[in-house]
Amino acid sequence: MGGIGQDRQPSWEVIAKEHAAKQLNNIPAEWRLPRDKLDQLSGVGTADEGRLIQLQAAKKSGLLSEKELDITENHTARDLLPKLASGQLSSVEVTTAFCKRAALAQQLVGSLNTTDLRVQEFANPTSCLTEIFFQEAIERAKEADQYLEKNGKVRGPLHGLPISMKDSFVVQGHYASVGYVEYLRQPIPEGESALVKLLQEAGGDLTADSENNIFGRTLNPHNTKLNAGGSTGGEGALLAFRGSPLGVGTDIAGSIRIPSVCCGLYGFKPTADRVPFGGQNACPFPRNHLPGIVPAAGPMANTLADLRLFMDIVFAQNPWKYDGTAIDVPWRPLPTADAEDGGKKLVIGIAPEDEEFKLHPPVRRTLDETARQLAAAGHTIVHLPADPSRSIALGGRLAFAFFGLEGAPSNAAMEAEFGEPLVKSLAVGVHPYSAANPPPLSPEWGGARKVAEWHRLREGYRDSWRRAWLENGLDVVVAPGAISTAVAHDAFGVPVYTASWNVTDYPACIIPYGASSKVLDPTPMKGHAAFDADCSPWNFPANNGPNKDIPELQDGAPCSIQVITPTFKDEECLYAASIIDKVLNGV
Amino acid sequence: MGGIGQDRQPSWEVIAKEHAAKQLNNIPAEWRLPRDKLDQLSGVGTADEGRLIQLQAAKKSGLLSEKELDITENHTARDLLPKLASGQLSSVEVTTAFCKRAALAQQLVGSLNTTDLRVQEFANPTSCLTEIFFQEAIERAKEADQYLEKNGKVRGPLHGLPISMKDSFVVQGHYASVGYVEYLRQPIPEGESALVKLLQEAGGDLTADSENNIFGRTLNPHNTKLNAGGSTGGEGALLAFRGSPLGVGTDIAGSIRIPSVCCGLYGFKPTADRVPFGGQNACPFPRNHLPGIVPAAGPMANTLADLRLFMDIVFAQNPWKYDGTAIDVPWRPLPTADAEDGGKKLVIGIAPEDEEFKLHPPVRRTLDETARQLAAAGHTIVHLPADPSRSIALGGRLAFAFFGLEGAPSNAAMEAEFGEPLVKSLAVGVHPYSAANPPPLSPEWGGARKVAEWHRLREGYRDSWRRAWLENGLDVVVAPGAISTAVAHDAFGVPVYTASWNVTDYPACIIPYGASSKVLDPTPMKGHAAFDADCSPWNFPANNGPNKDIPELQDGAPCSIQVITPTFKDEECLYAASIIDKVLNGV
Repeated sequence: MGGIGQDRQPSWEVIAKEHAAKQLNNIPAEWRLPRDKLDQLSGVGTADEGRLIQLQAAKKSGLLSEKELDITENHTARDLLPKLASGQLSSVEVTTAFCKRAALAQQLVGSLNTTDLRVQEFANPTSCLTEIFFQEAIERAKEADQYLEKNGKVRGPLHGLPISMKDSFVVQGHYASVGYVEYLRQPIPEGESALVKLLQEAGGDLTADSENNIFGRTLNPHNTKLNAGGSTGGEGALLAFRGSPLGVGTDIAGSIRIPSVCCGLYGFKPTADRVPFGGQNACPFPRNHLPGIVPAAGPMANTLADLRLFMDIVFAQNPWKYDGTAIDVPWRPLPTADAEDGGKKLVIGIAPEDEEFKLHPPVRRTLDETARQLAAAGHTIVHLPADPSRSIALGGRLAFAFFGLEGAPSNAAMEAEFGEPLVKSLAVGVHPYSAANPPPLSPEWGGARKVAEWHRLREGYRDSWRRAWLENGLDVVVAPGAISTAVAHDAFGVPVYTASWNVTDYPACIIPYGASSKVLDPTPMKGHAAFDADCSPWNFPANNGPNKDIPELQDGAPCSIQVITPTFKDEECLYAASIIDKVLNGV
Repeated sequence: MGGIGQDRQPSWEVIAKEHAAKQLNNIPAEWRLPRDKLDQLSGVGTADEGRLIQLQAAKKSGLLSEKELDITENHTARDLLPKLASGQLSSVEVTTAFCKRAALAQQLVGSLNTTDLRVQEFANPTSCLTEIFFQEAIERAKEADQYLEKNGKVRGPLHGLPISMKDSFVVQGHYASVGYVEYLRQPIPEGESALVKLLQEAGGDLTADSENNIFGRTLNPHNTKLNAGGSTGGEGALLAFRGSPLGVGTDIAGSIRIPSVCCGLYGFKPTADRVPFGGQNACPFPRNHLPGIVPAAGPMANTLADLRLFMDIVFAQNPWKYDGTAIDVPWRPLPTADAEDGGKKLVIGIAPEDEEFKLHPPVRRTLDETARQLAAAGHTIVHLPADPSRSIALGGRLAFAFFGLEGAPSNAAMEAEFGEPLVKSLAVGVHPYSAANPPPLSPEWGGARKVAEWHRLREGYRDSWRRAWLENGLDVVVAPGAISTAVAHDAFGVPVYTASWNVTDYPACIIPYGASSKVLDPTPMKGHAAFDADCSPWNFPANNGPNKDIPELQDGAPCSIQVITPTFKDEECLYAASIIDKVLNGV
């Protein structure tokens, strides 16, 4: 498999540049802004440089009309659907509004190609979009409007709604490059991913854009000096900038939840295989049929109600009809908190801080405040004691042990196969091991024995968490979504607080709550264990630089919590999340 | 691991004999019958020798009172429960009745230790029971009666009902030998299997007996010259003789369904992990954590309603609380056919006869008659065309490829580990391969690659069956449960018609219907492909002898069909089975 591309012409750099140029050409000329205007909107050279949301860059761009600003800023997906169905808003105007905003996001972050962001080594200065097909999106929107006019009814429950998808999903007639140039050397893939087909048959317009965080660096629109989270970071950035009303990501170690943490979004990783996953291009850990941790597809949005909307609509279409790997278990309708007086009173376990993976101060403050608020609202709070048989660190090690099995590609194997260097965040080789806590599978074992032993260890880990639920009568566990908020680029480290729930295959939902603050979290960054390269060598790569100025850098970065339930309790997870969201955010 | 037991004393023969002697001592003296009486009840020397049910051996034994005969012969588990709950029948009298009948079954088949049955090579002449704890069963029954009297309410939904379990399940204080002497060398296992605990907490008395078909040969009470099916054959024989009202088996290739086919019972293999499987002794393919085909626990009974009863009660107890491997998805209540006017009209796919595994004439006749009856009752019959991508033969090969993976024990490995020879039905080494259809996994691949490739092939097989469902709008598939009815001992061959549904993990239910008949199926046995050792070398081992007298031998052997639905459609499977059972059997 090594070096497939190496004996071909042209080189990966040339291919990447050509694809990037084609991509820019797909932004209509009238939606393009001059570089000086973009720099001004981005606050280049000012104290607020890169705080695109705070700077109201979209509003000040002049690109969107008042109505388009209203559509994109003041409407959730759930708000838009009845207006689209009644014809109060046309699909063309909704789709155009989001496309414009997405095009603006793409150009704005492209304008911030500065040295300190270290993006110059990437072939493509743009960020949150990869395959751009605005024209097709608007064409499909026209069809939706004509259908409604002619038939007096909607095409499906998602009628006319533009939806953005991680570009591992294959949309008919387009590349799904997943950030790898090798895919661009191959023919455009045939057919469509199962979920693409399902959502299109529900009336959705999955044609606006798709994303990755590798093919060019994705910046966080809250602060472009911060990461947007991977590997669905483009979705995160796009949704946070309101360039899309509803996004779809995939998650094998946190790739829905980490960008949600970083960009201040709601994100839901369901039990694996409840949402169809079939027909995607594989990245970065392919569904290679080696059983173990299975990636899950799920929604990202600006409200919890939109996560629920996505699940409702996916299940109404019967996922098993689209994908044989989808589990054919119906969605059990549960109320949302706002349907009642705040919902039922929950027994909530608060996950203990992991000794090996200490929380950053704003994350700990958010978790503590969450527990206080929930207790004040009448919920029962159980502070779970630390238990090595179910520690977050052990979960992280089990996740990485699976990714390291024969059959899951190593960095070197990926480089050899794709004929291009890996981007820094992959190549840096973060991992959760240490001398005291080495990898759990002996390199001397045969492949099948490793697989069997890994499953035995995973079963033990799952069973320990099950006992935590039973012994404490828990409804949910609330935990951080990560050690940190969004951090400097390439500094995110090992995502143990998300990957553990991929190991257990427990549904997990990110709820944004509050923000990092240089006032409330002024000093603790310096000397904190997690920031000490010697103390926690695996968490932060050595090239991450000094951390003493980070409170300033991260000021205003979104904070969040993670709500977790056992496998197949997806319905209970979103129900509990709605109760908790009401307490924390009043929505 | 090789030869663990070889350097120990005493030998396996001595241990087995001692255990068997202890076992006989556990039958109370007043329940033991003299050999000449047993021979007479079994019809030894007559034309009907060994047709224990037809001979009414239980009634003529004089061991059971009229009331005990009524309890055991005229009551299903569902009938018994309200009488136990109201006190109309005491648990002691119900338990005693079934224990007596079980003890009789054990002695009757023990009396048939004749040369043509080739049982003399086994250490233990008895058959359907292994661990006998009648005394404990009656003690527990007394407690149940006292509880009811004292509290005026039942201990649980299974209050006072004796239940028999395959002896892979561990019952507190008893061996679960699974037929392997090695287990008898070890201490009695600690604790209990999850399902044992669950059923006991539901009020059931899981203390009557347990079984295997290896530790001594199990004979079919319909005709002791025929096999009872494996590996839950003891359950099958016991239930058919009405020595137990409800049995629990396990099924990784057909071990619930094959004994049901052979003994004329209803048997249900659910989707794996819906019924708790944890805490069993491993046999013969252990749950060794190598992911792939997962054994399923499920019920065997004399009526379909009792299968449903078992599922209702297991789910009411919330299996996940007992076993972390149990899937925490609630049972969706569906009606049974008798609740309405025959239930809904089904679209029923009839599985095509496999070219490589031709059906025996009574099996084909039963399937044809089933299709006719169902069509006449207004159901839509779709005769599915043969398709190599979902053939029963391919399913069989995929099953055996999994069992042959590193980590699943080979015959040689089992012999070495257990220090005793394997019984003939395991050692004979049947398999579904041929020169034209070799094993699907290359022996040159590494272990993890084999595992991944096996899962890829399995996914393709599942997906082909999924398309069969979608393209034909099927509710269920009806297929044979085996190539044959019960056959001569050691002649059952490769269970491809059951194992295929373990590969897909589809729920499957056996419904008994009619019987083999030397009048209706007089000649076709001779020269039939499946009976030609040269034509179908893998199906029948060479030592099976001539087949020309088989129509005579198999006359009266129960026939049956198998009802199949996709994964997680367990509820729909039992619902459809109730509709079909009403058409075929009027119940």
